[in-house]
Amino acid sequence: MTSSNGIALYSYWRSSASYRVRMALNLKGLDYEIRPVHLVRDGGEQFGADYTRLNPQQLVPTLVDGQTVITQSMAMLEYLEETHPKPALLPADSAGRARVRAIAQAIACDIHPVNNLRVLKHLVTNLGLNEEQKLDWYRHWTETGLSALERMLATDEIDGRYCHGDSPTLADCCLLPQVYNAQRFNCDLSGLDRINRISDNLLDLPAVERATPENQPDAG
Amino acid sequence: MTSSNGIALYSYWRSSASYRVRMALNLKGLDYEIRPVHLVRDGGEQFGADYTRLNPQQLVPTLVDGQTVITQSMAMLEYLEETHPKPALLPADSAGRARVRAIAQAIACDIHPVNNLRVLKHLVTNLGLNEEQKLDWYRHWTETGLSALERMLATDEIDGRYCHGDSPTLADCCLLPQVYNAQRFNCDLSGLDRINRISDNLLDLPAVERATPENQPDAG
Repeated sequence: MTSSNGIALYSYWRSSASYRVRMALNLKGLDYEIRPVHLVRDGGEQFGADYTRLNPQQLVPTLVDGQTVITQSMAMLEYLEETHPKPALLPADSAGRARVRAIAQAIACDIHPVNNLRVLKHLVTNLGLNEEQKLDWYRHWTETGLSALERMLATDEIDGRYCHGDSPTLADCCLLPQVYNAQRFNCDLSGLDRINRISDNLLDLPAVERATPENQPDAG
Repeated sequence: MTSSNGIALYSYWRSSASYRVRMALNLKGLDYEIRPVHLVRDGGEQFGADYTRLNPQQLVPTLVDGQTVITQSMAMLEYLEETHPKPALLPADSAGRARVRAIAQAIACDIHPVNNLRVLKHLVTNLGLNEEQKLDWYRHWTETGLSALERMLATDEIDGRYCHGDSPTLADCCLLPQVYNAQRFNCDLSGLDRINRISDNLLDLPAVERATPENQPDAG
């Protein structure tokens, strides 16, 4: 894969934060190069010296646009929105933008971090949780978080194909990867009607389908 | 406290997410009413029916601006920046804005959520951790996260009184509350020279000082 506009994404196929950014890049129709970082092989390629210089937190993804290096997926989504405003992934009105960002942050801050790889590892290695207890932890926070999110999605009169009306937004870029993770760990998603419907609608978009973990060059 | 422009913040004095928004409101010179939500009393006032209607996640803070109700502190910071652009809490250039947001998100996503009240409660109640083990958990994630943040702050040539040059930004609104929490739980902050210096500089600002937990009407 080559890149005509100098955008590269250091990504791991199963990383949901990487998946968010792939969705935004594809929805905006941008050309970019995927540079795979394997989070498990060799103890984690994200801990290598070269990668640590790019991303001092030793996390994926990292977005490189020419000379600009950006860490943190939510900062990347906002950057892409500012530098490539069309098609917009935020609504035009401030209240709508706040709602989209709140949904995105409810996932990025309150669901995802409690269950990411380093926390799960710590629970097993340092607190001695067994596999079943680890899965209980995972499901507890995912199910609690997605239930609250379902309520958030229901509080507004804005309904439609996606989280905020009939165009995908930054909120959708966060939702679908979280649902993917939840399904992978067999979380109970019954009753989350809006979330399930929105996820299905998103996967119908070719740009989104190309961003899914299974369609990445490093999937395996 | 009355409000001339209709802004109200549902806040808990010790909630670091509330503290972030108080900092932004004060730095922008906005008048607002604090509506205290006690997170511990009566099993947690955030679980009440009226509050849950405002904030389906049952978390503080919630920002109300006229008819607009906003949840998630990072969405509030962006909203305030859009609706009250001066003084700016984001730099003008896209790369700088991305750096500020990345620092803010490194705190909001990778340090704070793993240690918030509901997670600590779960560790004690459901996993049987004792007080010392709970504090170990707290310190582990805070110290790991702040060390990575110190490296992030050092990677850029932009140095100054605050996280990004000589004007406070959204990154500072996230940093100081996290440092307050770290100090409260006796985390080891030695060697975090940039973080400690920036925190001291921030507390020298009267607008910031008025946002500190101890200066809130519900402190106690």
